[in-house]
Amino acid sequence: MNADKIPDIIIGRLPIYLRALQRLAETGSQTTSSQELGKIIGISAAQIRKDVSQFGEFGKQGTGYSIPFLIERLQSILKVNRVWDMIIVGMGDMGHALARYNGFGDRGFQVTMLFDNDPQKIGQVVNDLEIFSMDGMTDKIKQSKIKVAILAVPASVAQIVTDQLVKAGIKSILNYAPLHLNVPNDVHVQHIDPATHLQRMTYYL
Amino acid sequence: MNADKIPDIIIGRLPIYLRALQRLAETGSQTTSSQELGKIIGISAAQIRKDVSQFGEFGKQGTGYSIPFLIERLQSILKVNRVWDMIIVGMGDMGHALARYNGFGDRGFQVTMLFDNDPQKIGQVVNDLEIFSMDGMTDKIKQSKIKVAILAVPASVAQIVTDQLVKAGIKSILNYAPLHLNVPNDVHVQHIDPATHLQRMTYYL
Repeated sequence: MNADKIPDIIIGRLPIYLRALQRLAETGSQTTSSQELGKIIGISAAQIRKDVSQFGEFGKQGTGYSIPFLIERLQSILKVNRVWDMIIVGMGDMGHALARYNGFGDRGFQVTMLFDNDPQKIGQVVNDLEIFSMDGMTDKIKQSKIKVAILAVPASVAQIVTDQLVKAGIKSILNYAPLHLNVPNDVHVQHIDPATHLQRMTYYL
Repeated sequence: MNADKIPDIIIGRLPIYLRALQRLAETGSQTTSSQELGKIIGISAAQIRKDVSQFGEFGKQGTGYSIPFLIERLQSILKVNRVWDMIIVGMGDMGHALARYNGFGDRGFQVTMLFDNDPQKIGQVVNDLEIFSMDGMTDKIKQSKIKVAILAVPASVAQIVTDQLVKAGIKSILNYAPLHLNVPNDVHVQHIDPATHLQRMTYYL
């Protein structure tokens, strides 16, 4: 089937399924059901079955899913059955925390370059990676053909830096700056803004 | 109208509208339209009008929205026309970065207590706040009546710590641990997991 036709909201749930399956696999489980998975992640079993069935046959009613097989298939669909090199731009507190984060490795990503424009930070080493000047950023991205970037710069410069990343060939941007970024249609942005998430919950307080 | 009936997906967009409006206000703008707002945040003008109209009349067709008024109303709806005290549990790299983050203040939150169970970290001071032992966490939360927590502990202990937070009266948890948390119905959880966000984008690469 044409993968382009899968709604983005379904694609957004696949990494959550994959994460839960990987945690189940760590405990030694070999099979699971949509019911069990649904309980773990708080999504209905029917929704999980429907989402997964978009990509073909994964298990039979009553026999459940093979965890290793479903992990392999989801990794393949999400293209994380390989490791994507990734850069971090902006080495403030958040950039540092992300550069040292050890949760990317088994999920398809590794940080390979760090950038900042602060002369005091350039040349420093974080988690075995040197912080490079942003002056040479575009060339370095092009040469290494990196497609994935984490943006952790202040909001005031986030759009300018984004434009540079897009020109350099970046196609996926995880944005920690608290503003919406304008990008061409073939570039995807995901936002991580803790205050936005918190405000969504205070409504219910 | 009964606020409980507003779908959560609409509630989830309100903080994004608020953020964009606050940025517009910073530039000195007094009025905006659903068209302008839609362009800034990548949501259709019709969707914005429909969402906002759930909460009453905010502007007339053709005259646009008053930015200060809409900000005030959205802050009131989201209950961030006050400042919520908030704790951070888990003072690793991410906890440190969040404790030093200066983007909470003008958006309705302030970090007032930090917790960890590492004897080496307890007693350290981060951004003028002492790191407390988790042994006394439940009592401290109850005494101060804090309702909002950021969870930045390892996945292996995240559910146990969550259970403690819930017992202590926490109602909103921003979860940085890469797993789903089980909580009672009256407790809300939002997840921030960079690898999940990244995997959602590699699908399109």
